[in-house]
Amino acid sequence: MKYSVKDISLAAQGENQIAWARAHMPALIDLQNHFKKTKPFKNLKIGMALHVTKETGVLVETLIAGGAQVAIASCNPLSTQDETAAYLAKKGIAVFAYKGESKSDYYKFIKLVAAEKPNITIDDGCDLVYEIHKNHPKIIPQIIGGCEETTTGIIRLKSMERESALKYPMVAVNDNLTEHLFDNFYGTGQSTFDGILRATNILIAGKTVVVAGYGDCGRGIALRAKGLGANVIVTEVNPVRALQAAMDGYNVMKMVDAASRGDIFITATGDKHVIVPTHIKKMKSGAILCNSGHFNIEIDVDGLDKISSSKKTIRPFVEKYFIGKGANAKIIYLLGEGRLINLSAAEGHPSEVMDLSFCGQALACEWLVKNHKKLHAKVYTLPQSIDEKIARLKLGTLEIQIDKLTSEQQHYLSSWQEGT
Amino acid sequence: MKYSVKDISLAAQGENQIAWARAHMPALIDLQNHFKKTKPFKNLKIGMALHVTKETGVLVETLIAGGAQVAIASCNPLSTQDETAAYLAKKGIAVFAYKGESKSDYYKFIKLVAAEKPNITIDDGCDLVYEIHKNHPKIIPQIIGGCEETTTGIIRLKSMERESALKYPMVAVNDNLTEHLFDNFYGTGQSTFDGILRATNILIAGKTVVVAGYGDCGRGIALRAKGLGANVIVTEVNPVRALQAAMDGYNVMKMVDAASRGDIFITATGDKHVIVPTHIKKMKSGAILCNSGHFNIEIDVDGLDKISSSKKTIRPFVEKYFIGKGANAKIIYLLGEGRLINLSAAEGHPSEVMDLSFCGQALACEWLVKNHKKLHAKVYTLPQSIDEKIARLKLGTLEIQIDKLTSEQQHYLSSWQEGT
Amino acid sequence: MKYSVKDISLAAQGENQIAWARAHMPALIDLQNHFKKTKPFKNLKIGMALHVTKETGVLVETLIAGGAQVAIASCNPLSTQDETAAYLAKKGIAVFAYKGESKSDYYKFIKLVAAEKPNITIDDGCDLVYEIHKNHPKIIPQIIGGCEETTTGIIRLKSMERESALKYPMVAVNDNLTEHLFDNFYGTGQSTFDGILRATNILIAGKTVVVAGYGDCGRGIALRAKGLGANVIVTEVNPVRALQAAMDGYNVMKMVDAASRGDIFITATGDKHVIVPTHIKKMKSGAILCNSGHFNIEIDVDGLDKISSSKKTIRPFVEKYFIGKGANAKIIYLLGEGRLINLSAAEGHPSEVMDLSFCGQALACEWLVKNHKKLHAKVYTLPQSIDEKIARLKLGTLEIQIDKLTSEQQHYLSSWQEGT
Amino acid sequence: MKYSVKDISLAAQGENQIAWARAHMPALIDLQNHFKKTKPFKNLKIGMALHVTKETGVLVETLIAGGAQVAIASCNPLSTQDETAAYLAKKGIAVFAYKGESKSDYYKFIKLVAAEKPNITIDDGCDLVYEIHKNHPKIIPQIIGGCEETTTGIIRLKSMERESALKYPMVAVNDNLTEHLFDNFYGTGQSTFDGILRATNILIAGKTVVVAGYGDCGRGIALRAKGLGANVIVTEVNPVRALQAAMDGYNVMKMVDAASRGDIFITATGDKHVIVPTHIKKMKSGAILCNSGHFNIEIDVDGLDKISSSKKTIRPFVEKYFIGKGANAKIIYLLGEGRLINLSAAEGHPSEVMDLSFCGQALACEWLVKNHKKLHAKVYTLPQSIDEKIARLKLGTLEIQIDKLTSEQQHYLSSWQEGT
Repeated sequence: MKYSVKDISLAAQGENQIAWARAHMPALIDLQNHFKKTKPFKNLKIGMALHVTKETGVLVETLIAGGAQVAIASCNPLSTQDETAAYLAKKGIAVFAYKGESKSDYYKFIKLVAAEKPNITIDDGCDLVYEIHKNHPKIIPQIIGGCEETTTGIIRLKSMERESALKYPMVAVNDNLTEHLFDNFYGTGQSTFDGILRATNILIAGKTVVVAGYGDCGRGIALRAKGLGANVIVTEVNPVRALQAAMDGYNVMKMVDAASRGDIFITATGDKHVIVPTHIKKMKSGAILCNSGHFNIEIDVDGLDKISSSKKTIRPFVEKYFIGKGANAKIIYLLGEGRLINLSAAEGHPSEVMDLSFCGQALACEWLVKNHKKLHAKVYTLPQSIDEKIARLKLGTLEIQIDKLTSEQQHYLSSWQEGT
Repeated sequence: MKYSVKDISLAAQGENQIAWARAHMPALIDLQNHFKKTKPFKNLKIGMALHVTKETGVLVETLIAGGAQVAIASCNPLSTQDETAAYLAKKGIAVFAYKGESKSDYYKFIKLVAAEKPNITIDDGCDLVYEIHKNHPKIIPQIIGGCEETTTGIIRLKSMERESALKYPMVAVNDNLTEHLFDNFYGTGQSTFDGILRATNILIAGKTVVVAGYGDCGRGIALRAKGLGANVIVTEVNPVRALQAAMDGYNVMKMVDAASRGDIFITATGDKHVIVPTHIKKMKSGAILCNSGHFNIEIDVDGLDKISSSKKTIRPFVEKYFIGKGANAKIIYLLGEGRLINLSAAEGHPSEVMDLSFCGQALACEWLVKNHKKLHAKVYTLPQSIDEKIARLKLGTLEIQIDKLTSEQQHYLSSWQEGT
Repeated sequence: MKYSVKDISLAAQGENQIAWARAHMPALIDLQNHFKKTKPFKNLKIGMALHVTKETGVLVETLIAGGAQVAIASCNPLSTQDETAAYLAKKGIAVFAYKGESKSDYYKFIKLVAAEKPNITIDDGCDLVYEIHKNHPKIIPQIIGGCEETTTGIIRLKSMERESALKYPMVAVNDNLTEHLFDNFYGTGQSTFDGILRATNILIAGKTVVVAGYGDCGRGIALRAKGLGANVIVTEVNPVRALQAAMDGYNVMKMVDAASRGDIFITATGDKHVIVPTHIKKMKSGAILCNSGHFNIEIDVDGLDKISSSKKTIRPFVEKYFIGKGANAKIIYLLGEGRLINLSAAEGHPSEVMDLSFCGQALACEWLVKNHKKLHAKVYTLPQSIDEKIARLKLGTLEIQIDKLTSEQQHYLSSWQEGT
Repeated sequence: MKYSVKDISLAAQGENQIAWARAHMPALIDLQNHFKKTKPFKNLKIGMALHVTKETGVLVETLIAGGAQVAIASCNPLSTQDETAAYLAKKGIAVFAYKGESKSDYYKFIKLVAAEKPNITIDDGCDLVYEIHKNHPKIIPQIIGGCEETTTGIIRLKSMERESALKYPMVAVNDNLTEHLFDNFYGTGQSTFDGILRATNILIAGKTVVVAGYGDCGRGIALRAKGLGANVIVTEVNPVRALQAAMDGYNVMKMVDAASRGDIFITATGDKHVIVPTHIKKMKSGAILCNSGHFNIEIDVDGLDKISSSKKTIRPFVEKYFIGKGANAKIIYLLGEGRLINLSAAEGHPSEVMDLSFCGQALACEWLVKNHKKLHAKVYTLPQSIDEKIARLKLGTLEIQIDKLTSEQQHYLSSWQEGT
């Protein structure tokens, strides 16, 4: 059996975790049951580079139910849940991942997936696509297409497309409304506070929370902060978003002005060095810094290190920095080393949110199978009907029924003359 | 002096109303001050068919400050504020409008505006553009372009464009983020309840409010209903929006199921016959129906009439329908005859919201002047920079300062390689 | 027929208004139906000094249904709804009230009620009780007791009780939870913004609203401000309430600091001179002042007058004050002359809230009838069971069913030993 | 040195935890600094039976700063944080507590505290008072008084008072507004969801959350549920509270009706068997049950066991019950064995909330010292001035300044004549 996991004996625990995930991913399970009948992936191999979590486990099961053979590596050296990996390995899946894997193992594992000669690739950050284009060009003729989960990966792919370096069709799954309107807003909103509370156990009510960035993530974070009783300040660079934040009742100002008011600072901009020593120097002693953006560059941690006299870990995921010395030293707390707080101190997005995202992945694969003959080596967005199908699947599992347009209503909408 | 208004002696009242509007449209006033210096509309005539309200009065003043000559008719026989019209007439502007104007006067007035031979047209529903194309083709060569405010108007123009019937460039002002994200969401959200409260004086807290449609308008209405203490039910036909409503904590169901639960029903779908007798028959006695969508077709008022034994007006904008007879008759209240409740029972959108929309109109005119030589007889969306300019103007008047990207941050955003 | 109203021909309009009130006071109607059978007030006269509104009309009908004869004067020279008075007069009730009655008529009318020799009195501010004690002591032996609606009236009565000047038992209806937890919080919260919107038509979203006082009224106002998208600042003198406001996510500061930040100021403290020229001088030009407290003394209107160079009414209930002169004059808007904004610019509390308060009045009368032999000339609070009865009546009309304690649960609650 | 702790080498970790607590209990630290100067507890011994947590550690330090000698046992066999106990022991404090102590050790430790002959007692549940009255009556003459934290304890003490069994004065600290308005509402509200998320990692948005009980705890839980995007149902037995819940926009119904709708059930009633098999049988498969009330009797766990075919622990604090067998078995998840979810799966109340409660404890001790000569063997509530002092201390540390009544305002409030 081909696999490389930390400890195969964790499989039983992994089974429990996956059962818990399944219970909260009903739309994907519905799709799984459908695939069991239609077998869209019969005789196909799917290669994946994704976070190896319990939710990904359910995606793997869904693809296999559809007839696929699956090989999977991780897309991040730190995010693997070893129990899940063990469970998948035990089930005979080619899984190559362990939590805290070395850089060389990380790339070796991706190579091992490519070596399985997949017909479809699924990526989160584009590393598998990159590996195949660079080192396994021979397998490309057998590849139907690939799916990419992240904005970052899409940027990379579009650049490849522009330079004619892209050699097979790719689906930008993140373009799905059922992905970015839900994952970023509801997922990040809640899990950011889950992470903060696990790390600190502080009271949010009455705190001044500064949210940097008012995109989908920032809007979700600000809404949950307000819902927990915080007084919220928003910083932005985009004037339209800044105006929305103001109309939503938040204080909007520059970070340099927010610095002296905030108790908790949360970055969600997608940009770097949003909080730098200039800001930190103005903060109150006891201020807490954390990040909910993709990479650990939003807070200038090196800068914080440089202006600090010392630091110490006082709780898991809580580092205390001393700025100045002795009794008058100012204290700044940094959570999770400035990495994604929801993944470092908590468990990332809830399964319910991944349910939507992974329905998108699974349906993107099916769409590639059905349409690959018409497709070119370009980046595609799925048709709106697939988004609606995902939403309908989810609504169905929530036992929510919605209205249908009558033919009279449909006619009205398509003929603009009536009603003027 | 050319004008046709109800009563010129209302001009003093109109001045007060316009002063009040100016005080709440600071961004447009800023633009006005800028136009005073730059005079972008020097030697140009601008013809308008818009609601003749105090806010429109400020727009007219702004265009004149920029050097324009203005002629204006109304775009709706019922929406003219006669004091505003009187004030504008007294100031020497060619204004043709009175509240409750006859159909023949309505069209006569639009013809009078066309007769002024405008170089730029501003429309809300496309009637002026239509009149010019149909009856005044000779003036088209002198026309630089036009602006259209509404979605309905845009649909009409795109149809003309497709059939090559459109003869000069048009700007779709409604495409501006500063228009549709603010006007529909914050404007309609608040003013719908303003209208309901003026009509009924009922307590919203504890009521079950059914919102039909979860687009920008419906989302704004649902949010304000919740903010006033209601229990909110949403009905939708689009599954993605229905799912959003569910994730936002609302009950989502078919109208036929919501019918028996609701105390107040508000339609905001843009479609017709969203509430029909089938629904009304299931409602509780005392249910209140109203509409916040563009046209008075969302509630099937004829259908309601047919199933009723009698009706009577019991307060301004409140009609009481009796379904069945005698002591057991069920009562249904219809507000504002099923017309836009915020305009029929209250004063429409607050000035602050029109501030953004009319900055869009004024800047669209300026953009036409600057770019018309490059433009074709097509429908255009303004560049994002104009949206940002409007938002910046508004933020400035709110004394809100926001961050600017550092060059390091700009570089990071444009180079996708870093950070992976 | 004994009555004194403005115009008896308004009775038909009054009937419509009372019908609307009845439709939104279902608990009181339930009680009315009960009284029709039990006739608790048979052979009794009830004298009232209350706001003569449509809701009071329903209370009058309820008492009459219970067998009472009723005589009523107003408790405020400005609050009478003339249509309601006309309707009641036409029905044969001894009603003495018109909107804008002179001071001499005001007191004459109260005397006329006393002259009817009531057996029970109902007061809002204690003027009828005072009149009877002072000028009609001979009728006191026939008086069973009285009810008082307001905190102010209660303070007056307790003072009389302390000085042994009180000669018959009084019920403090305001002590009912179903009165002060609902009327002040939900009633004032909503109707304050109803008044502001009718007066100004401004957008609340994005405004900074300063609420002075965080009692039941202030909490209700702050919550609705937030619900409409405002950024809320609270001022308080009581540290526990100030801390609650902070924990509820609001900015809390001194009025002198809030002055320069606020767009709209709302007073709800029950105290005088909460906003004075010192504060007004620090405000932004364009700030709006209004009051939701009982009396028009919370804003120092005389002080505002003194620092202003001129003023003018620009919309109904909106006065524009100029502070300083010429183009640099600062503008301050005062709404409703500093009187209760919900009553001056809108219609006061919604019927649904008065439903609870007037169930309290009606049940207080019944309780007096049943218990007067045991009562002394003191101020009484109704037993908790009556509060619960009112709440149950209301829940019943809302078709809400709630749980009942099992005998096991009742036993558990009364025996503290179990469970430790 | 007298102590009995699990592992003295945990002291360094304890120091970190206590440092973290201190940083979030600024009001208590202020009081500590004050006590350092005034030494109110000089020559006094204080005996405590409290949860031995990091926050309690700060209270112990505060009392010692005031000159006291302290001996402490736990008031619950499971709630001791062993690092904190180790740290206190190392500092020379007589601490007797370890997590998971046996019943005999539990009572032995309380006896050891009594054996120290305290002059003041501090209790959470009344066990130390009970022990002293029963087994150490000789030390009572030296006892100035005691403080009790919980409602349950107060009930016990009042019963002793009624039967003249109470032999020294007791302060009911829970009566402080700064205790029950904050601890129950903000503390329980947040920490309940902290516990649920740590246990389950589910998405709250879009879930139907059933909250049993709408007291201070239930109101806090419902508000946070709404703030996290849930659709909330409330069950109650008290009609006034039920009506409040309805007016707050929640669905209110019987538990038997809520049972089939809920996704998550949270009990906070203070009563027993609020959720029983009758309800569970109606629930959806996958429903999650948990408790936020004091004791683990709100959910009938034995009843759940009886109707289940099997159960298994699938994540820490998550037990999966199978009702019925095979593929059709219904699944019910029980969190934390039905014990307080915030303490079992998370860390209990945040330090900021305990800051207020423990200021109450420390000031109650000081009040006993100052007033004990006037006191009797009764249960006392602290004067309002102490509540205000606590709130002022806290506001001071939050750098919030509030208004003070002017003498004019004070006069107005005390003289009811003005303003009528």
